[in-house]
Amino acid sequence: MRDERPNHIHHSRGTPNRGTVRFAIIGAGRIGRVHAENLTRHIPEAEVIVIADVFEEAAQKTAQCFGIPQASGDPADVFHNDSIDAVAICSSTNTHAEFIVQAAQAGKHIFCEKPIALHLAAVDSALAAVEKNDVKLQIGFNRRFDPNFRGVRDAIRNGEIGAPYLVHITSRDPAPPPISYIEMSGGLFLDMMIHDFDMARFLLDAEVEEVTASGAVRVDPAIAQAGDIDTAVVTLRYCNGALGVITNCRQAVYGYDQKVEVLGSLGSVSCENNTPDRVIRQTSVGVIYPKPLYFFLERYQLAYADEMRSFIRAILDDTEVEVTGSDGRMPVALALAAGRSLQEKRSVALREISP
Amino acid sequence: MRDERPNHIHHSRGTPNRGTVRFAIIGAGRIGRVHAENLTRHIPEAEVIVIADVFEEAAQKTAQCFGIPQASGDPADVFHNDSIDAVAICSSTNTHAEFIVQAAQAGKHIFCEKPIALHLAAVDSALAAVEKNDVKLQIGFNRRFDPNFRGVRDAIRNGEIGAPYLVHITSRDPAPPPISYIEMSGGLFLDMMIHDFDMARFLLDAEVEEVTASGAVRVDPAIAQAGDIDTAVVTLRYCNGALGVITNCRQAVYGYDQKVEVLGSLGSVSCENNTPDRVIRQTSVGVIYPKPLYFFLERYQLAYADEMRSFIRAILDDTEVEVTGSDGRMPVALALAAGRSLQEKRSVALREISP
Amino acid sequence: MRDERPNHIHHSRGTPNRGTVRFAIIGAGRIGRVHAENLTRHIPEAEVIVIADVFEEAAQKTAQCFGIPQASGDPADVFHNDSIDAVAICSSTNTHAEFIVQAAQAGKHIFCEKPIALHLAAVDSALAAVEKNDVKLQIGFNRRFDPNFRGVRDAIRNGEIGAPYLVHITSRDPAPPPISYIEMSGGLFLDMMIHDFDMARFLLDAEVEEVTASGAVRVDPAIAQAGDIDTAVVTLRYCNGALGVITNCRQAVYGYDQKVEVLGSLGSVSCENNTPDRVIRQTSVGVIYPKPLYFFLERYQLAYADEMRSFIRAILDDTEVEVTGSDGRMPVALALAAGRSLQEKRSVALREISP
Amino acid sequence: MRDERPNHIHHSRGTPNRGTVRFAIIGAGRIGRVHAENLTRHIPEAEVIVIADVFEEAAQKTAQCFGIPQASGDPADVFHNDSIDAVAICSSTNTHAEFIVQAAQAGKHIFCEKPIALHLAAVDSALAAVEKNDVKLQIGFNRRFDPNFRGVRDAIRNGEIGAPYLVHITSRDPAPPPISYIEMSGGLFLDMMIHDFDMARFLLDAEVEEVTASGAVRVDPAIAQAGDIDTAVVTLRYCNGALGVITNCRQAVYGYDQKVEVLGSLGSVSCENNTPDRVIRQTSVGVIYPKPLYFFLERYQLAYADEMRSFIRAILDDTEVEVTGSDGRMPVALALAAGRSLQEKRSVALREISP
Repeated sequence: MRDERPNHIHHSRGTPNRGTVRFAIIGAGRIGRVHAENLTRHIPEAEVIVIADVFEEAAQKTAQCFGIPQASGDPADVFHNDSIDAVAICSSTNTHAEFIVQAAQAGKHIFCEKPIALHLAAVDSALAAVEKNDVKLQIGFNRRFDPNFRGVRDAIRNGEIGAPYLVHITSRDPAPPPISYIEMSGGLFLDMMIHDFDMARFLLDAEVEEVTASGAVRVDPAIAQAGDIDTAVVTLRYCNGALGVITNCRQAVYGYDQKVEVLGSLGSVSCENNTPDRVIRQTSVGVIYPKPLYFFLERYQLAYADEMRSFIRAILDDTEVEVTGSDGRMPVALALAAGRSLQEKRSVALREISP
Repeated sequence: MRDERPNHIHHSRGTPNRGTVRFAIIGAGRIGRVHAENLTRHIPEAEVIVIADVFEEAAQKTAQCFGIPQASGDPADVFHNDSIDAVAICSSTNTHAEFIVQAAQAGKHIFCEKPIALHLAAVDSALAAVEKNDVKLQIGFNRRFDPNFRGVRDAIRNGEIGAPYLVHITSRDPAPPPISYIEMSGGLFLDMMIHDFDMARFLLDAEVEEVTASGAVRVDPAIAQAGDIDTAVVTLRYCNGALGVITNCRQAVYGYDQKVEVLGSLGSVSCENNTPDRVIRQTSVGVIYPKPLYFFLERYQLAYADEMRSFIRAILDDTEVEVTGSDGRMPVALALAAGRSLQEKRSVALREISP
Repeated sequence: MRDERPNHIHHSRGTPNRGTVRFAIIGAGRIGRVHAENLTRHIPEAEVIVIADVFEEAAQKTAQCFGIPQASGDPADVFHNDSIDAVAICSSTNTHAEFIVQAAQAGKHIFCEKPIALHLAAVDSALAAVEKNDVKLQIGFNRRFDPNFRGVRDAIRNGEIGAPYLVHITSRDPAPPPISYIEMSGGLFLDMMIHDFDMARFLLDAEVEEVTASGAVRVDPAIAQAGDIDTAVVTLRYCNGALGVITNCRQAVYGYDQKVEVLGSLGSVSCENNTPDRVIRQTSVGVIYPKPLYFFLERYQLAYADEMRSFIRAILDDTEVEVTGSDGRMPVALALAAGRSLQEKRSVALREISP
Repeated sequence: MRDERPNHIHHSRGTPNRGTVRFAIIGAGRIGRVHAENLTRHIPEAEVIVIADVFEEAAQKTAQCFGIPQASGDPADVFHNDSIDAVAICSSTNTHAEFIVQAAQAGKHIFCEKPIALHLAAVDSALAAVEKNDVKLQIGFNRRFDPNFRGVRDAIRNGEIGAPYLVHITSRDPAPPPISYIEMSGGLFLDMMIHDFDMARFLLDAEVEEVTASGAVRVDPAIAQAGDIDTAVVTLRYCNGALGVITNCRQAVYGYDQKVEVLGSLGSVSCENNTPDRVIRQTSVGVIYPKPLYFFLERYQLAYADEMRSFIRAILDDTEVEVTGSDGRMPVALALAAGRSLQEKRSVALREISP
């Protein structure tokens, strides 16, 4: 029934901007501003009509900064706006699933930040609404668009390392977030490692069927008081028999450390961190290379733009998005399995969580 | 008499676009298109009014591609256009000096690709016109805006390596240009090494007083038939007593190799090439890192945008440009000295060329 | 009561070679020959009196090769030889514990290859005999003497990375051993990962209290038929709260891959593989670095000599050995715990194995 | 007439040590001790009979340290000693040529440290005596036996980089020698760069026909007062048309920096410095790799042993030495040409020095 939706991009009446996707952005926080900048400045095929945030002032400020014509204090506003083709959901996690449902019902295509929700029931409701209303949903797993990770994945796909044996994913933040953030985050597995669960699936193009988690508090005892961990090792068993291991730490003082390596029958492929430059100092201290880029905004700057370009291309060409709703659901299930494994000190099969 | 010029950016009557520099681009070849893209897409403070090329079709094609309102087959047109604040001279080298003179007389600020001219007399006429008409002139030594080279220069300025002893500059193209290009190029020293002569001055913030050149034809005998060399080593003696060495080759099959190193009393600072990604393959062949970015358009993509931002900032803030007319003149003199050294098999003092 | 032992190095009657340790080598296989070469050629403080192997021909061949005066087909011979100060036990694993007991009872100092035994009861008997007879026992955990691993450990000890958070140990063989070897090996945890369990303790100078193991057969199905795995991930929990992860694979076609990294509150310290040289090729394929040294004999050549020097020094100076009997026992316990964890798909506390 | 020489290794009367070369070492300074250690400890095919030094005490001390049976205060002694097959000349440069003549006349094979002499006449006399007496002469260009440089040379020989275009040789000492040493050294070209002139020939297996030198004093003005330079750039023109450049500096505070790179039609091959280990620290300062090994004794430890093994092999197998007298002569000629070039500020053809 695509053709009957009033504001489908290819069929909207009276639209002069064929070839352009008109966006609403929901959420004017850090990540909302990243998408606002990319959509307004770096992607000619996008037009941002409105930005909405319950903190209306934040919406107004971002609108002004990026020349967005409308700012709103009520995110619900955007769903009734006929001039909008797509929404970018950048609000707090607890609102994602509900906004997906509302956007889908309004016939808007949806770009949603990860995670969809912290519980599978909410995820499944959201995905059902997307399915029913036949809109596109892309999840914000931006790392899939990082040239390094993509290069590793492509090498594997091209058969360069043969059959995969062992996947290593290392992810370290430069510094832990505020305790207030951690308290609301859903925990390290759902907040931080969820990207790595997605990466694990992305690299091998294969599902994980079992996880075994260990965790510790090493960085800050206040994180333990908040009921979370800051350091974790999770072992993965893939359906194809390969093993994987993800390690996370909330603090690496030298910067944002994001690396993967996959060993296979014909060799290994890995990637190093990006650095601000390639300047090398040789002094009496040693041979000093640059530190990694500081944090995710720097490291994934290009990836954020490219994921949005990919989403817009899928809308304009009416093709499958590169990161589907199912891609959004599986890492949530894996994070929940990891949580149970940590508690029960045993391996947990994915089917225990998502039968 | 700045204030009387009709279309000076800060004082132009009736201009609604305070804070914007209105450009004409002269030359719709490869480099002209680079500047067109940056000015139209990536630099909000710029507006391109017209692009002119003696091949009018090329101008029209580029205009269309980047949404430039006017295309012209007569570069001279742009000098009489009162709505233009600045010109970007991207035409063939033999036109640079004359266009600088005309632009300066018309009161336009000037961004000019290197080299200004192949003879010092022409350079000096151009610089005199700039001086007389009090316009800004920036030379397109884009490498000064490369984060790696800038990082090396900054480390030296910060005293990190102490007193400089020895400068190494390596510059290799992936493949030689067509013989027809080489015939018109002015020769390797003026066409290719001129960037390195500029880099030599930039890194130490010091003048070179003597050069000693050796050259050979190794890549293609046709280059010898065209009267040029394709491989060269030039030794520099700086006024401050430091030595330097530049090596050039027209062909490095693994890509564009652009590196510098400076050794000083407290250590050395150098930079490696940028690569398309940081993916590493370990196979039975070896441990394989990515090749350098292919050529200058890839390597210096950011630098091209940044040099133009710097030029626009100098106009809008009425400050000194970062690459002056004198910075354009000295490398020409050094290239001419290198040519004489090569012929006479002896060291040539700069004052022999430019007394 | 050291002084009463008949052939203690410092007090042996009639010995003209004060400052020399007289060795018997038991086992003339690959590792026996390594020790024979080091003791005869590279360590002036050692004198090899006899080499014994149940395959007498092997003993004779090795004796001839390295100028060892006696060869024997009966390892027990050496224990009754009064001119011997120390034995190097390089025979098959199933003989280690018994030879330790016999050597201890004969008052010989003992260097024994890992593992002491495949069961803790045998290990404990051996250690009791060592204790009772007051001889020195050093276990052949040669990697502790590798300059890279030692450098990492020293950096941690020096406080360079602050409090340790997370230990990564990667160990990959270039190719799996023959199935016949695997069948007798005790399994991957006791045969291969035992070195990494030792490394885990060495790097942090702390005990591991819990292990969680996952394993798979990826390299060769025949390994599964032999009841073993070829790929494994084991997570460690240290008594001090740090986490660790060891990954093993029996095959990395690019060579012997042996790396560690430790992340701590002030940064990380890691080591790369040694390579045969530092030659770099830049071709149209990429930038090609050398592969790691092929296997353990190449990688740990210096470490094998240094562990023996350390043992000899401990004897001559009557100081504590650097790798004690307890250092030999703990990795066996950890390997057994890993085996149980793999079977039962749960975390296993070390105290379950070694109460 | 080899077979008639009285103490030729294969035919000496009464020698029980067939397969062994009996050495005399002349000179018990730093390099003499290096050879003494290798010959006595690491090369079973060598036997050192005597060490001689005009400072007899130094000879005695070294003899004692390495278990050499005789020490002498008169180097001439060794030439009359019938039990000696070969001499290693490690005395001061001004004695090399004369000792070569005497050794040759006495029918001894000769290993001589570089340079043979500081003047070509003396070199030629020495080579004539070697020729006349049909003994082997190997020059101590140890770097030819460094695995990195040899790896680069082998890659070139194997055709991996195609036709060579451009050779880069970088050589930096960690700190300048005492002024008293510099005064006697023959100057930077003959003392330091002589190794690089040899390397230039070795890498391409081709002769250099023209040199162009620049020099400066940057490290210490006292070096200027001693009539020498401490920083130099020398450009080479090979007979085969390739170009080369050697840069030297007497001080690199981060350690001994010894690198080469050769660019050719199919790519480049280069080598990095060896380091004491491969430990990497990531801290708030940056990513810190180890410094190069401190100086030549550390860097070329293996090379010193291997050059001597090669010499001994040539004697025992009666084959050509790997570094001939001509290989010792050419770098002296190149160093003299560089000196003239520096003085006269012009390119100097080798045939001007050595017609």
